Amino acid sequence: MATAPSVSYSMTVRLEVPASGTAVSQLTTAVESSGGSVTGLDVTASGHEKLRIDVTIAATSTAHADEIVEKLRGIEGVSLGKVSDRTFLMHLGGKIEMASKHPIRNRDDLSMIYTPGVARVCMAIAENPEDARRLTIKRNTVAVVTDGSAVLGLGNIGPMAAMPVMEGKAALFKRFADIDAWPICLDTQDPDEIVAAVKAIAPGFAGINLEDISAPRCFEIEARLREALDIPVFHDDQHGTAIVVLAALTNALRVVGKAVGDVKVVMSGAGAAGTAILKLLLAAGVKNAVSADIHGVVHADRPDLVDAAADSPLRWIADNTNPEGYTGTLKEAVVGADVFIGVSAPNVLSGEDVAAMAEGAIVFALANPDPEVDPAVARQTAAVVATGRSDFPNQINNVLVFPGVFRGLLDAQSRTVNTEMMLAAASALADVVGEDELNANYIIPSVFNDKVAGAVAGAVRKAASGV
Amino acid sequence: MATAPSVSYSMTVRLEVPASGTAVSQLTTAVESSGGSVTGLDVTASGHEKLRIDVTIAATSTAHADEIVEKLRGIEGVSLGKVSDRTFLMHLGGKIEMASKHPIRNRDDLSMIYTPGVARVCMAIAENPEDARRLTIKRNTVAVVTDGSAVLGLGNIGPMAAMPVMEGKAALFKRFADIDAWPICLDTQDPDEIVAAVKAIAPGFAGINLEDISAPRCFEIEARLREALDIPVFHDDQHGTAIVVLAALTNALRVVGKAVGDVKVVMSGAGAAGTAILKLLLAAGVKNAVSADIHGVVHADRPDLVDAAADSPLRWIADNTNPEGYTGTLKEAVVGADVFIGVSAPNVLSGEDVAAMAEGAIVFALANPDPEVDPAVARQTAAVVATGRSDFPNQINNVLVFPGVFRGLLDAQSRTVNTEMMLAAASALADVVGEDELNANYIIPSVFNDKVAGAVAGAVRKAASGV
Repeated sequence: MATAPSVSYSMTVRLEVPASGTAVSQLTTAVESSGGSVTGLDVTASGHEKLRIDVTIAATSTAHADEIVEKLRGIEGVSLGKVSDRTFLMHLGGKIEMASKHPIRNRDDLSMIYTPGVARVCMAIAENPEDARRLTIKRNTVAVVTDGSAVLGLGNIGPMAAMPVMEGKAALFKRFADIDAWPICLDTQDPDEIVAAVKAIAPGFAGINLEDISAPRCFEIEARLREALDIPVFHDDQHGTAIVVLAALTNALRVVGKAVGDVKVVMSGAGAAGTAILKLLLAAGVKNAVSADIHGVVHADRPDLVDAAADSPLRWIADNTNPEGYTGTLKEAVVGADVFIGVSAPNVLSGEDVAAMAEGAIVFALANPDPEVDPAVARQTAAVVATGRSDFPNQINNVLVFPGVFRGLLDAQSRTVNTEMMLAAASALADVVGEDELNANYIIPSVFNDKVAGAVAGAVRKAASGV
Repeated sequence: MATAPSVSYSMTVRLEVPASGTAVSQLTTAVESSGGSVTGLDVTASGHEKLRIDVTIAATSTAHADEIVEKLRGIEGVSLGKVSDRTFLMHLGGKIEMASKHPIRNRDDLSMIYTPGVARVCMAIAENPEDARRLTIKRNTVAVVTDGSAVLGLGNIGPMAAMPVMEGKAALFKRFADIDAWPICLDTQDPDEIVAAVKAIAPGFAGINLEDISAPRCFEIEARLREALDIPVFHDDQHGTAIVVLAALTNALRVVGKAVGDVKVVMSGAGAAGTAILKLLLAAGVKNAVSADIHGVVHADRPDLVDAAADSPLRWIADNTNPEGYTGTLKEAVVGADVFIGVSAPNVLSGEDVAAMAEGAIVFALANPDPEVDPAVARQTAAVVATGRSDFPNQINNVLVFPGVFRGLLDAQSRTVNTEMMLAAASALADVVGEDELNANYIIPSVFNDKVAGAVAGAVRKAASGV
């Protein structure tokens, strides 16, 4: 599939061009003929003979950006100055900071914020630990914890290289739910050490957002931390994804007029996201689900499962899905299915596979950046198509979920997060799309829809307050 | 010693008083006759018969504040409304927050701050880990780590109750050195677990500020972390205190015209601060030091030291101090001494003890809030007196040190902090007081002197750049 130029591959190029002649118009032409787009053009200095121009250009990839720069260099009379990458510029020195809520102007301020005044506040908390949620940042603070083992689609790049994602996540927590999150990137990938470190740092936080930790370790780490801590532990790659998928599926089923208990759902991918989606769909009332991984459809007699431990994730899938006993490939299972959900790899399905699904088929092809099936092709026969990409309708994006979920958990001072809260979050998110707005190209609201976080937070707070 | 009313015991009392008559003037009289002081008086509503007045009052203690409120309640015609404690109000919801450096206004912003743009930044760091200091918050971020075992003078109140101090510290880092610090309050007091947790969280930080961890565990924890990590580890209670004491002593010796190599220094207190001060003084050239703890002067034949491990802190003191072989009490050792430094307990010395010191005696009585000797009494015979209190001249305050030290370490991208850097910091801090400013009541600058952090940072950066 062709990709549109994106600001995430955006650069600003400083050029000197002759003041007279056609050089300026040639710049724009050169960029556009290379498939880039000019998103800004500033004349930053002007003389009788020369103009200095900063041209901001969106490209489709790093290689494409280099190619455009070469094209500009080739224009007669143009000399090339500094090339600045806008995304890298935005990351210089990091994207977040610590800020004081109160000025420290004089000794009086100091004596209240720090010693000796602070001592009375400390003693109040020592006497009544619940006061920490009133008198410290704990009330509104979430740790964004990763070991860097499964960062975006980049794999195991380690904790330091994961920092930009965790900082971005913290920025999103603030932007969408006014939560103070701080990145905690762990220098270990050992589950025991991860659990010990998160337990150790927990007192200063009211919630733990696990992020980009690879399966199957993520299941064990999350389960052990939930058991050990009195604050909610939420692995966004699992549960954030599951909630947004369930919300989108709820609305997609409304579009095609099918009931959740009646549909056959086929899934591709049995990792962290796939397993969590499956569990939440079953909790939401799906009765007929089939899950496939790289070895084909999961069933109890599959060679790699016969000897699997009783508590292994795949074993759980085998025991709880595939009521019709499929033993073949994903492509076979998908024939006649109502819903396909992919969280796996590019191009595992063709247009013919989608065409073989039931009438009113729903296809969520969420592999990023290249989906399980070309969404343009899928749309030829499927009734509803969604992807993880921002350049197609129906983007399935966790940003719709985690800010509101944590806002609700923090507001309820919840000590846990459970399936009921997640179902409530999905239902509230689905309902943000009104009856009059709902259609095949609008099953899920935009991340900039300002009703989303509040709706999700309200539902989670209500569900959590009963716990 | 009498304490002056302080804003750290400040409250705002809402009162309704008759519009006519003398009630208003009686309010002020009542507060002042109780030993409080009125720092603000706002009429917030006015009618024909009644005035609503918010009176802000500074008291000397919680009990004193209660007493003043009772006095106000007793005035004829006055009815008492809400009493608000200003220090607690300032702590509501915590004192610090996370802030984004960039707005997230639209999909373009999102695609640079988060996926897909962020992936290129992650890959750049994965390929060149040093880039984390350029492209993430690591560059400017310090963890303020405590286990809550020795918080201020409050003792072992635990990690949650320590939060207000750590938040305050983070606020001071920002205010004085533009450093982004985040509190990490650990739910363990086991040295192995503390070391493991700090090692685990280190990738996202460029420095570790250990805080309020009790001796002797603090020595082991710091030493093991310094060995394990490639970022500087600085226990402020030890080294921050040592640096500010050395700076103050340097200037006090200038005032009395003595050389550091010639003086006899007697110390009271052999805990974290005492041991660190002693080591830094020896590194700075002190040759004759005597250290005393609760069991008297430290010497090799003292019963509790005969069998002490070779690497125990007290053993180190015995081996490196007390060249004249004192075996008695602190009071005996102090006779004829040039310098007394106390980091121990209230009232261990009397005016007679100070009078028995050498001509031009220097007394640093740093126990808080009640010093080792009443500073007013000490000043009758000593040439220079300093305390840890803000209501006497020459306040020895760590705030003069830790912001600048970390600023210098971060600017130099230092992987360690060593004695040379600490000596450089002390020397730079002492030199902030100019020749023409120096006198017995001004041996150390104010914490609000805006030259301090820059001077300390510059000296530390220079010393660290050579490492």
